[in-house]
Amino acid sequence: MHEFEMIRDYFRPLTMGRKEAGGLLDDAAILDVPDGYDLVMSSDTLCGGVHFLDDESADNIAHKCLRVNLSDMAAMGAVPYCYQLNLAFSRKPDAAWAKIFTEALMEDNRAFEVFCSGGDTTVIEGPMLVSLTITGLVPKGKAVKRSGAKAGDLVVVTGNIGNAVIGLKVLLGILDVDDPAEFTTACHCPMPRTAIAEAVHTYANAAVDISDGMIADLSHICGASGLGAQVHGDKIPFSDGAKRLMEQGVISVEDLITGGDDYELALAVAPEDFEAFKAQAAERGVCVCAIGTFVSFDFEGDAVQVLDASGEPMAFESDGWTHF
Amino acid sequence: MHEFEMIRDYFRPLTMGRKEAGGLLDDAAILDVPDGYDLVMSSDTLCGGVHFLDDESADNIAHKCLRVNLSDMAAMGAVPYCYQLNLAFSRKPDAAWAKIFTEALMEDNRAFEVFCSGGDTTVIEGPMLVSLTITGLVPKGKAVKRSGAKAGDLVVVTGNIGNAVIGLKVLLGILDVDDPAEFTTACHCPMPRTAIAEAVHTYANAAVDISDGMIADLSHICGASGLGAQVHGDKIPFSDGAKRLMEQGVISVEDLITGGDDYELALAVAPEDFEAFKAQAAERGVCVCAIGTFVSFDFEGDAVQVLDASGEPMAFESDGWTHF
Repeated sequence: MHEFEMIRDYFRPLTMGRKEAGGLLDDAAILDVPDGYDLVMSSDTLCGGVHFLDDESADNIAHKCLRVNLSDMAAMGAVPYCYQLNLAFSRKPDAAWAKIFTEALMEDNRAFEVFCSGGDTTVIEGPMLVSLTITGLVPKGKAVKRSGAKAGDLVVVTGNIGNAVIGLKVLLGILDVDDPAEFTTACHCPMPRTAIAEAVHTYANAAVDISDGMIADLSHICGASGLGAQVHGDKIPFSDGAKRLMEQGVISVEDLITGGDDYELALAVAPEDFEAFKAQAAERGVCVCAIGTFVSFDFEGDAVQVLDASGEPMAFESDGWTHF
Repeated sequence: MHEFEMIRDYFRPLTMGRKEAGGLLDDAAILDVPDGYDLVMSSDTLCGGVHFLDDESADNIAHKCLRVNLSDMAAMGAVPYCYQLNLAFSRKPDAAWAKIFTEALMEDNRAFEVFCSGGDTTVIEGPMLVSLTITGLVPKGKAVKRSGAKAGDLVVVTGNIGNAVIGLKVLLGILDVDDPAEFTTACHCPMPRTAIAEAVHTYANAAVDISDGMIADLSHICGASGLGAQVHGDKIPFSDGAKRLMEQGVISVEDLITGGDDYELALAVAPEDFEAFKAQAAERGVCVCAIGTFVSFDFEGDAVQVLDASGEPMAFESDGWTHF
C-alpha cells in the first residue's frame, strides 16, 4: 500500500472531526481559536520498547498516544481541540495495521471531541515513534499552572491511584493476578480527565497529571509553588482490586504511589471550594478525593510526606521519592 | 550530561522568546492568540539519512528543521509564532552538540521572531529524528490556501529556483563546482519567506512552498484549484551561478525546476495586484517574478506546462513532472 493511499484512506478521515481544518490539503491547518480563549499546547513522544511494547497492538498504541496527551490538556483545565500526529514506522505499515490504528483514534476523536489537524509519516530503521502535539482551549487567563498552589489548599486526586503500574507488572509477566483486565486496561487505555476541564479551571489553584507517579508529580506542584505537601496514606484512593493485592502482600502502597502512568490528576483546591469541585466532577462521572494538605515547606526531607495512621511520615524502603 | 541538565542549560533558553509560555514548567504551554487571528499549524519530521546526512553538523540540522517549517507558515501568509520540538537522538547527545544545536535555533528564534513552546527528547536505536510542529498567526479568514487560484492569475515565484538541488548534488559528491557555498547554503539553510507574510495574505489567491520541486508544488495549487498552469521557461528565475552551470551543460532546467528543497513560494496573484505585491515584497527584501499564468485545464497532459521561447510545451526526458 502506497503511503499516499494509506493517508487518504485511513488517516485523512481523522481530520474530519468538528470541521475540515485543511491540514492535509494545505501547507498548514487553519484553527479558529475563539475570541476570549487561550490556546494551550503540549507534546509527548511515545517510543516502541520504552513507552509501549515493541509488539503492542495498533489500537493500544493509538489509544495510549492520544490519551496521555489529552491528559496534559486536562491538567491545564483545557478542553482538547486538535492534534498533529507525526509517525515514524519501523517498517512500512500494512493496510490492516493502519485500519486498526486509525479506527482506535477515530473512536477517541469521538469520545473526546477532538480531531487530527495534520502530521506526517516516515519509515525508519528503528523503533516505532509516535510524536503527538495536542492543543486545547481554555478561557483567557484561566489555564491552570503547577505554580498556583497555596499553603492550606487541599491535595486532591481523581480516580484511583496505581492500577496502571499493576497492569504494567502483569504485562511484563512479573505479577500474576486473577482478574487482570482492570489493570491492563488502565495501562493500555488510560482515562484522561478532560471531562472535568471546566471544574479544574474554575476551582483548582494548581494541577498536574500523574504520569511519573503520584508522589513525583505532586512534588512538581510543590517545587513550582514553593510548598510542601502532607498526604494521609489512608486517604489515598485505591481500587478494590489493588486493595486485595495489597492484602495479599504482592504489591505495596509505595509501588502504587510511585509507579506512574495513572493519568489521573493531582490538584490543589482551596478547602472552601472542595465541595463545589467535587460535586461538579461527580456530575461528569469523576470521583475526586482530598488526601492531604499543601503546607509551608519548613520540614526536613522531601517536599511530599506520606503520613501513616498515627501521623508519622512513612519510611519507604526503595530508592523512591519519600525516603528518610 | 543528564537529560534534565541538558534541557535546563541548553533547551530551556529557547523558550524565552517573546515571553515565557510555560511549556517547560507546566503540562502545556499557554499561547495568547490575539482576538481576530486564526492560528495555523503544521508539522514536519526530518530524519537522519533521509532529510539530512547522518553525520550532518548540529547547526545545519537545527537551521533546516526550523526553516522548512517556517516556510509552511510563509505559504499560508502567516507570521510564525512558536514551535514544539520533539527530538529522538541516535545516541545520548553531548553538551558540545547540544550547545551548537541550540545556538543555531536561538539565532533563528531571533531572526524569525519565534520561540520554542515545549517538546521532548528521547534516545532511540535508530536515526536521529526531529519532529517540529509550528504555529503561526494570520488575520481571521486571511490564511492562504492552495485552492484559491483563479484562471487568469499570474504564476509567481519568490527568489531563485534550483540552487538547493545543485547544493545537494555537490554535497552528495555527484557534481563539482568552483564556488559551492551559494548552493550548499541554499540546501543546508534555506530562507523561508516569512518576511512577506503580510503581502502574501493581502495579495495571493493561493500559495504553496516549494519543497518537492517547483513543478510538483505548482501542480498542487493546480490540483486544489482545478486549474492548469502555463509557465514560460525563459522567465523562471535562476541564480547567475545556476545559469553558468547550465551553460556548462552540467545541470539542466529540468534538474532545477523538479529538484525540490527550494523553500521559495509559488503563488497565484491576480494581474492587477502583481505590481503592489512585488513592491511590498521588495520593501522586505524579497524579489518576486511572474513566470506564467493559471489557465483552464482544458489541454492534454499534465496540469503544469513549461513553454519554450516559441510557446511550445517543453518535453523533458526524465520521468519528471512534465513529460509528454
